[in-house]
Amino acid sequence: MDMEMEEIIEEIHNSYTNKDLARIKELLADINPADIAMIIEESPNNQRLLFFRLLPKEEAADTFVELDFDTQEALIHAFTDNELKEVLDELYLDDAADIIEEMPATLVKRILKNTDSETRKSLNALLKYPEDSAGSIMTPEFVDLKKDMTVEDAFKRIRRTGVDKETIYTCYVTDESRHLLGVTTVKELLLHDYEDIIGDFMETNVIYINTMDDQELAAKQFDKYNFLALPVCDMEERLVGIITIDDAMDVMQEENTEDIQKMNAMLPTEKTYLKTSVIETWKSRFPWLLLLMVSATFTGSIISGFEDKLATLTILTAFIPMLMDTGGNSGGQASVTIIRAMSLGEVEFKDYFKVIWKEIRVGLICGLSLAAVNFAKIWLIDRTLLHNDEITLLIDLAICITLVIEIIFAKIIGCTLPMLAKKIGFDPAVMSSPFITTLVDAVSLLVFFGISTAIIPQLH
Amino acid sequence: MDMEMEEIIEEIHNSYTNKDLARIKELLADINPADIAMIIEESPNNQRLLFFRLLPKEEAADTFVELDFDTQEALIHAFTDNELKEVLDELYLDDAADIIEEMPATLVKRILKNTDSETRKSLNALLKYPEDSAGSIMTPEFVDLKKDMTVEDAFKRIRRTGVDKETIYTCYVTDESRHLLGVTTVKELLLHDYEDIIGDFMETNVIYINTMDDQELAAKQFDKYNFLALPVCDMEERLVGIITIDDAMDVMQEENTEDIQKMNAMLPTEKTYLKTSVIETWKSRFPWLLLLMVSATFTGSIISGFEDKLATLTILTAFIPMLMDTGGNSGGQASVTIIRAMSLGEVEFKDYFKVIWKEIRVGLICGLSLAAVNFAKIWLIDRTLLHNDEITLLIDLAICITLVIEIIFAKIIGCTLPMLAKKIGFDPAVMSSPFITTLVDAVSLLVFFGISTAIIPQLH
Repeated sequence: MDMEMEEIIEEIHNSYTNKDLARIKELLADINPADIAMIIEESPNNQRLLFFRLLPKEEAADTFVELDFDTQEALIHAFTDNELKEVLDELYLDDAADIIEEMPATLVKRILKNTDSETRKSLNALLKYPEDSAGSIMTPEFVDLKKDMTVEDAFKRIRRTGVDKETIYTCYVTDESRHLLGVTTVKELLLHDYEDIIGDFMETNVIYINTMDDQELAAKQFDKYNFLALPVCDMEERLVGIITIDDAMDVMQEENTEDIQKMNAMLPTEKTYLKTSVIETWKSRFPWLLLLMVSATFTGSIISGFEDKLATLTILTAFIPMLMDTGGNSGGQASVTIIRAMSLGEVEFKDYFKVIWKEIRVGLICGLSLAAVNFAKIWLIDRTLLHNDEITLLIDLAICITLVIEIIFAKIIGCTLPMLAKKIGFDPAVMSSPFITTLVDAVSLLVFFGISTAIIPQLH
Repeated sequence: MDMEMEEIIEEIHNSYTNKDLARIKELLADINPADIAMIIEESPNNQRLLFFRLLPKEEAADTFVELDFDTQEALIHAFTDNELKEVLDELYLDDAADIIEEMPATLVKRILKNTDSETRKSLNALLKYPEDSAGSIMTPEFVDLKKDMTVEDAFKRIRRTGVDKETIYTCYVTDESRHLLGVTTVKELLLHDYEDIIGDFMETNVIYINTMDDQELAAKQFDKYNFLALPVCDMEERLVGIITIDDAMDVMQEENTEDIQKMNAMLPTEKTYLKTSVIETWKSRFPWLLLLMVSATFTGSIISGFEDKLATLTILTAFIPMLMDTGGNSGGQASVTIIRAMSLGEVEFKDYFKVIWKEIRVGLICGLSLAAVNFAKIWLIDRTLLHNDEITLLIDLAICITLVIEIIFAKIIGCTLPMLAKKIGFDPAVMSSPFITTLVDAVSLLVFFGISTAIIPQLH
């Protein structure tokens, strides 16, 4: 499939050189808006508007939505007022609101000037919802029915108004004051007789969300209930919009990206990687690096406090990186697993004791198995093979005991901190590997030095 | 909403104690299958079958699909043959195949015995596709139309056969030998006149996927094109099934979880956290811990090689954790960002030079800003405030120069390894923080010791 797309792009390019616009039009008509968008984005600026103008009106709007904001902005600048109006008329309101949010103020003015007053009113209402709220991703364009309509009435209404709705497949039944009474689907309608009354078979147990709820909560409802659309109500429980599954999927991917960024010591960024400037990338990475760097100096001061003894037995220093890395990795595994399980709704705070009991056992087995390998490795390779005569049995033992203790500790901390964070209302994703590593490092060293001092005679 | 659910659960519990089954039936009828499944899963074993038997037939199948495999297995054991047959008849084929895949052999035999021969044939066909292939998640139950049908014919066909289809909203047009000719939607059908011919308005540029393609590729098509369903063809380009968006969403979440696990040094597990046994968890965590532990001993041997000099100037040891952690975190940030961007299709191998040029600049700014903070901190706090007189200006300088070099290096390695891995066909997610940390650790120490030896007079 990708091969074909490359051929099409090449042919479009050749046709442009030969000024064969009819051929380009033909080629573009044959492919999907998401692919046309990609082609336009990758074309030089002077070709973009031309290609866009070759699209049929409806296709043009579908393509426009798929473009990145920079290309949208460039096109809007280049559009005549008439063209702008045509595109805007075809856009769904939630998409139009998304675009407006990203445009500079002068363009927003021009966009709003080119919409009719009703659309402008709806757009302004959508733009007022806080970022990341359910209201900000909903569209007010849904099919609403009344409960005394027949199936035939319903189809008539859908045929008349459906062309402008983002989805027609889920239909909402409301009363005169727009309160949500029930929901039905086109599948249900098709399987009923024309004279059946909507109110008799509609589903009255409707799951909905509030305009001010978090968009992440909305996405979770799709994941849980396999909806195609989710109704959004205002504080008075009046139906004001719906969220469609494609937008929910986008939110889900955004939230996943955010979680992954936070888990790895970055502040979330909204733009794609290549669109984020160097300074913006720095801003998202620097604060955590700084915080973790400063915390790591505490680990350093633990070593400083032990300096004299390390000087007597410098071989111990060689094992510090291994102990630090293994502790950090063990804790990171536990924390990432728990954070993900919580974000998928598999684990809640009430499972805490189950979780910790499991992590202690996993930690114990991981610790014992790694310690066994390590004990043999130190003795056979470091001492026997590499003739590191400084290594005694007790040193080997001190290292391996530290390993077992630090891994169990790392697992406990790794599952406790994210669950605690969530319990007290913080984002658990922040309590992830880098943060836990720093904490586990310090504890590992304290354990190591403590055990070494206790059992190695040279350090007494 | 959650509060309400808790009240319902409590009332069901009370009704059970009072043997008021009619009330339980009423309560269950009012809630969504996904919620009923949760209630059944959390009920004691002796109540599960009872609650299940109180559900209306259709609701029962919808609920059964939502249950976890353990509960499904327990229920199948408890079902009479008749009950089993009833549930199986209502299941979509792809869901039935998923369930069969997880059941022990004896139950599979019993399940297949209770399906009719046609269903059994379809199930066996589905079960033959490799795990994680598009074929393994598709369903053969779709609406197929012929191109000379009128809209009216199409609606008749949908009304007649639609009840058993997982989705009816996307309809596929095939020829006599089942080759895929085009696609249309119920929305299109509703907006056309009854006498219009399907072949005249169907979309002929159909994006499809092959049965043997990876399920992840299928999920990506949904993300890109905003489909509700994606057709799946065999090697002869005959339409054999469709993938619906709810299954694509599940795949997407699974793949996200897998990526997160791999990024954090774990082998992916399929089960949810609480369902994974201690030994299975250990198996997914131990191999990476072992590999990273052994690699970290190389870092240790770098320290060993520098032991004599560290003994002359033990204060240097105190800065090792900070240098190691900061390098590891910097590399982890870059690698995780690139892995995610590649998995979302934002970055490809052809962008390599753009990426590396950006990472070098980000690394330089991060390095310089952290070095500046660190320089001041060491001088003002460690030396002046804490009277650590061992620290000289040159030592401070050596640490800060190391910081800049290691961060730039970490960013370069962090973006290069995942992109390279993908280029040569490996999973980029494995080239993530823990792996990069180990590598960056070693290089950071070499840089630190190199620079220290070069500029600090005591070490000459």
